[in-house]
Amino acid sequence: MSVQQPPWSIPTNQAEEPALKVFNSLTKTKTEFVPRNGRHVKWYNCGPTVYDASHMGHARNYVTQDILRRIVSDYFGYDVHFVMNITDIDDKIILRARQTFLLERFRKETTKLDSLLFQEVYNAWAAYVLDKVAKGLAENDKPYQGGEDEFWDGLPTLLAQSGWKQECLKRDEKFDMHVSAADRAFAALSKAKTRLDAGDSSLEGAHELIDESRDVLAPVLDGKHKTTVSDHSIFRSLSSYWEGRFFDDMKRLRVRDPDTLTRVTEYVPEIVEFVEGIIKNGYAYELEGSVYFNTNVFDAAPNHDYARLEPWSKGNKELLEEGEGALGAKLGQRSPADFALWKASKPGEPSWPSPWGPGRPGWHIECSVMASAVLGDNMDIHSGGIDLAFPHHDNELAQSEAYHNCDRWVNYFLHTGHLHIEGLKMSKSLKNFITIDEILQRFTARQLRLAFLSQLWNAKVDFSESLMLGEVKTVEATFNNFFATVKALVSRYRSPSHQADGLHRYNAEERELTARFHAAQAAFRAALCDSFNTPEALIILRDVVSRTNVYINAQGSSLNIGLVEYITKWVANMLRMFGLGEGQVEEIGWGQDADEGAGGVNREGMLMPYLQTMSSFRDSVRKIAIAKGDTALKEILALCDSLRDNDLVPLGVALDDQPDGKALVKLVPPSELIKARDEKKAKAEALAAKKAAQVEVERQKRIAKLEKGRVPSEEMFKPPNVAEGTYSAWNEQGIPIADGEGKELSKNQAKTVLKSWTNQKKLHEEFLAWQREQGQQ
Amino acid sequence: MSVQQPPWSIPTNQAEEPALKVFNSLTKTKTEFVPRNGRHVKWYNCGPTVYDASHMGHARNYVTQDILRRIVSDYFGYDVHFVMNITDIDDKIILRARQTFLLERFRKETTKLDSLLFQEVYNAWAAYVLDKVAKGLAENDKPYQGGEDEFWDGLPTLLAQSGWKQECLKRDEKFDMHVSAADRAFAALSKAKTRLDAGDSSLEGAHELIDESRDVLAPVLDGKHKTTVSDHSIFRSLSSYWEGRFFDDMKRLRVRDPDTLTRVTEYVPEIVEFVEGIIKNGYAYELEGSVYFNTNVFDAAPNHDYARLEPWSKGNKELLEEGEGALGAKLGQRSPADFALWKASKPGEPSWPSPWGPGRPGWHIECSVMASAVLGDNMDIHSGGIDLAFPHHDNELAQSEAYHNCDRWVNYFLHTGHLHIEGLKMSKSLKNFITIDEILQRFTARQLRLAFLSQLWNAKVDFSESLMLGEVKTVEATFNNFFATVKALVSRYRSPSHQADGLHRYNAEERELTARFHAAQAAFRAALCDSFNTPEALIILRDVVSRTNVYINAQGSSLNIGLVEYITKWVANMLRMFGLGEGQVEEIGWGQDADEGAGGVNREGMLMPYLQTMSSFRDSVRKIAIAKGDTALKEILALCDSLRDNDLVPLGVALDDQPDGKALVKLVPPSELIKARDEKKAKAEALAAKKAAQVEVERQKRIAKLEKGRVPSEEMFKPPNVAEGTYSAWNEQGIPIADGEGKELSKNQAKTVLKSWTNQKKLHEEFLAWQREQGQQ
Repeated sequence: MSVQQPPWSIPTNQAEEPALKVFNSLTKTKTEFVPRNGRHVKWYNCGPTVYDASHMGHARNYVTQDILRRIVSDYFGYDVHFVMNITDIDDKIILRARQTFLLERFRKETTKLDSLLFQEVYNAWAAYVLDKVAKGLAENDKPYQGGEDEFWDGLPTLLAQSGWKQECLKRDEKFDMHVSAADRAFAALSKAKTRLDAGDSSLEGAHELIDESRDVLAPVLDGKHKTTVSDHSIFRSLSSYWEGRFFDDMKRLRVRDPDTLTRVTEYVPEIVEFVEGIIKNGYAYELEGSVYFNTNVFDAAPNHDYARLEPWSKGNKELLEEGEGALGAKLGQRSPADFALWKASKPGEPSWPSPWGPGRPGWHIECSVMASAVLGDNMDIHSGGIDLAFPHHDNELAQSEAYHNCDRWVNYFLHTGHLHIEGLKMSKSLKNFITIDEILQRFTARQLRLAFLSQLWNAKVDFSESLMLGEVKTVEATFNNFFATVKALVSRYRSPSHQADGLHRYNAEERELTARFHAAQAAFRAALCDSFNTPEALIILRDVVSRTNVYINAQGSSLNIGLVEYITKWVANMLRMFGLGEGQVEEIGWGQDADEGAGGVNREGMLMPYLQTMSSFRDSVRKIAIAKGDTALKEILALCDSLRDNDLVPLGVALDDQPDGKALVKLVPPSELIKARDEKKAKAEALAAKKAAQVEVERQKRIAKLEKGRVPSEEMFKPPNVAEGTYSAWNEQGIPIADGEGKELSKNQAKTVLKSWTNQKKLHEEFLAWQREQGQQ
Repeated sequence: MSVQQPPWSIPTNQAEEPALKVFNSLTKTKTEFVPRNGRHVKWYNCGPTVYDASHMGHARNYVTQDILRRIVSDYFGYDVHFVMNITDIDDKIILRARQTFLLERFRKETTKLDSLLFQEVYNAWAAYVLDKVAKGLAENDKPYQGGEDEFWDGLPTLLAQSGWKQECLKRDEKFDMHVSAADRAFAALSKAKTRLDAGDSSLEGAHELIDESRDVLAPVLDGKHKTTVSDHSIFRSLSSYWEGRFFDDMKRLRVRDPDTLTRVTEYVPEIVEFVEGIIKNGYAYELEGSVYFNTNVFDAAPNHDYARLEPWSKGNKELLEEGEGALGAKLGQRSPADFALWKASKPGEPSWPSPWGPGRPGWHIECSVMASAVLGDNMDIHSGGIDLAFPHHDNELAQSEAYHNCDRWVNYFLHTGHLHIEGLKMSKSLKNFITIDEILQRFTARQLRLAFLSQLWNAKVDFSESLMLGEVKTVEATFNNFFATVKALVSRYRSPSHQADGLHRYNAEERELTARFHAAQAAFRAALCDSFNTPEALIILRDVVSRTNVYINAQGSSLNIGLVEYITKWVANMLRMFGLGEGQVEEIGWGQDADEGAGGVNREGMLMPYLQTMSSFRDSVRKIAIAKGDTALKEILALCDSLRDNDLVPLGVALDDQPDGKALVKLVPPSELIKARDEKKAKAEALAAKKAAQVEVERQKRIAKLEKGRVPSEEMFKPPNVAEGTYSAWNEQGIPIADGEGKELSKNQAKTVLKSWTNQKKLHEEFLAWQREQGQQ
């Protein structure tokens, strides 16, 4: 064909697309995010050490990482490979598992309560007090110097001197915990003594003594018997249990499973190989069965830097020691900054074979090895709590760069901020320690996530009751109300078949709302590009909601419902993208087709309560209508009220009566409905009580008045109604005519008594009438 | 702090991110997609003209657009504003609505079958045959030349000569349709003639004749009476009905609602204003109440080109005429290429006021106006079926660029390809015309979508039974089997708490599968960037499935289940992204919290119809109860019955009333309920009819008996009640004492007449009593 189309050129984007920048711990600045390989993102996240229940610190860290991951994959559309480890071998796990095992064995082997058992527990208690409590006191320059008996009698008094405790607290934050453990054992010993004195040697008593003294017994048993413990399954069963609980908690918090999960105990051969590689490259040395990383040699190498994340922490003894673990007695490595890659196993510790003898992995090496095994010799993002930055992550970097002979094993390090509770660091000794289980009994997963979203991911979060009850619940209610309103409007104007007329125009109001909405979408994107600024993003969403509400209220029934729906769907999508949507699609498979009959059972179960309610209501209406009772219509009205206020409330259905007689139907959480109903009821009751009080006052007034009329006017001027001798003569109507002295009443006096008499006659008639009335009832 | 972090630099992306390219009808090449404003995409899609059921052509077009829209928004993450129009005023709608209305009116006004009616239908038939059929024959050089009688007798024979039909078909594809319409009317006329000859003038016969002759009657009635039709509601009710059906079909096909829906009848003032603007800019002229676009002036303007999409079609008379509509008689515009912006309304067409007199919008102008009203003076994407490229979209471009004085109103024109059925263009005359309703009875929405996904969106699709039963069902089964296998493996190895050991290693097999998977993710992205190449993307997904199956089979019980799950979730996500996932998340709101009452996702959609019903019921009861009308209670009862027999039946809810007044509630398929209700009704009616018949029999019996008692016993033996001369003498009670001959009655005779007399006396008394009764009523 000879006819040609006119020329065309690629358009110019007038608003440059914002680039994603992230706060990178390797620079402590926001740096542009560029993955190494197209849109593929390799991401390694430090997982938990599993030996106890997960707490609010875990919740903050893992929910926040989940939010970042969702933004990167679901909003920015990267193909993310999210890898996380489970640390299932570690000093804390070994100690906890061994002591638990030994305590259980001791308990099982105990057959009765006797003086032998008592003595063993008593000794353990005394040793515990000397070690944990008195040590604290000693360090406070007030050493305990009494004998054993005084311990027995005097400790509680001693402990009650709170000035000491406060002082000790500064040195050892676990002091309070130790005191309360010693106290509990002391009480159990007293009880056991009473029992023994009374000749009671029951097994029950023995178990009670052991159970209450677990904390003081554990170190003694561990000291005596730890060498007998080496079976891997003892350690594995503890970590396996807590790993299960951890993922249960994550599920309840709507945290997505990692794409790849690695477990240290399944990677020991790779760890040994990796350590060998580091030695071969010249950055590690063996010492008495353990292997240490040579920080000085590494730091001095031209292409390496040690502690790239926190170079200023290099010599921090406290952090270094904590990094080496509770069982890690120093064996004299060449430099204090050198850290263990491989630890020779002591008796009572699990061990794996290695070229350096039986041993176990150091803490830091596991992440280097597992990340390398799955992701290769580099990654785009490494994340974890800020606590882990030094020495854990700096050691990881050093090990991995030493092994791979590279200088940028990780391009972006994302550290989530600390969590404080009511202004203080969370700690068991401060009694502000909250497990995930506890917090989920008080707030929903959505509320918690909203709380974290409303703070910067890398900032310190101060979690407080007032934050949750104030800001978070307000934000949640704002969205809830918005969705309920829009749903009601949509079901009014759109169903069943889009036929409503006149709702599709774009006038100035619609154009303005649309323009503002599109600006909000751009601002939302800019906020997330600005290092995942979720607090700002939430403000933008709330602003969209509030502008849309203004439009809805201003337009009344001439609103463009399509526009409202368009905006609402986007808001809902963005909330769902943040992980706030709890109605999840199936993750494997493409879901059940409603037509394929998945419904069946579920559908019936779901609908039945509603249908039963509807049917009962109908039954009642019918019954009354059939009976044709006099007050039938009033009763029907009462039933309608009751359907709204009682039957539908627990089902979460709000009927919102309208002036036109057509109620709006909304689905609302039952708790909200119950609250609103009860408030309304309380108000009505208060009003009724006030009315009743008024009625009672009136009744009392009337009774007093009636009581006044009990005396007939004929008798009123005679004793006992007046004092004997007040008057001496009366006419036939009982009106006095002479005073007590026999003297005729004066004209004025006569007038007064007549007035009283006439008044009393009327009062008495009223009294009689009331009496008749009462008689009839 | 003096210690500094070592320097860091932005990484290099080693694999450049692929850019999205789309096949652009403005260049007929794949051009890079760049939106005008950040990530915001303005998109206008040509919607349907609503006057009939949607068919496979609609399914292909709208499902394909839905797929493109989902890829752009859900995969590439653009903020898309998707606008679609509904053409609810148009030549076809006018004609269809007017004829339907006139036929209904004609039918209503007909009271019996008579020769007048017969003659009218006969004339209509003859005119139809002459116009539609014989014309076809004539054009085929075999004109029909017989008289009227021969038509009457000979046509069926004529039509049976299939060679002719085939020839005619080439000239007019509707020929077969016309023949069969004429045939049907002919049969109805024959039947009516038989009826008339037999003296049957029943209304039923009249209605049958009219109903069977609708196609031949419609043009005649329209020709005679169209000027009497002008009420907008006549046209609106047709388009409103078909708009509802269209969206019902879209819902079943899982096509997302547009973000913004515009309806032409709601934008007429904006259209008038827009046309004025074009005139003002010098690109249109008025002619006898209509306004035309001046294509020559526009094409000659330095900054404009006419027909940028298909310049080679500029002079195509056939396409131009089709574009002007069935009612668009040319009025002599300046150039044959000029097209109507505004049409003066002829009698029988709806009209709106304008500066050029009462008229209605041309077809092309509506899209220019509504897109401009919502999206402003430009857009990124305009989409529609390839049929619309010329003249519709070229005229839209011209109009809009004339109005906005710009040269790129649309940056990207995306046209979906044609649909053929079993190798041929779909057409009613070819009997390969399939409605969406029909196709969904044979295949699921998912299967249809898979069929469209497996073809390029802008290619011609040949839809065939073998494609559906072969390739599509195979692909579906592949995914189904894969998901079922992985679900089974996950539930074996992962539940309840991730405790299975030894499943987390990454060995060579895992590393290879992972590497191939990541390469597939990149290839998938590249395929979608390559102008939405969904067939290639599907092949990649199938390849991922097949490699994963190989891994699963090779590994046996030592497989890394986490890796399998990771891959499977991505495959499922991509299928869901294409709109193949039927378990959809709620679109408004963030979903129900599972704790807040079972169900979650579908709960609301499922319950709303029930709750609405309950609420309406309650509204009605309340209204009556508040009104306290006399018969209120009876009305409430009627409502209760109606709830059971009418409102709840289509919802599949059976209320089974019990003697104790508490109805049983059952969920039953609506069809069964309707059947049961209708049977019950029929039974009740039959019973009532039987009862009524019995009552009638009794009534007749009683009347006969009463009739017998009409004669007083005193008169019964006298003429005229007995023949003259039967008796000759009677006592004072009228009892005969002598026969006709004067002879005294024998003892036996006397006894007989006395018995008759006594009996009659009783009957007469009954008769009198009944008469009194009647008199009182």
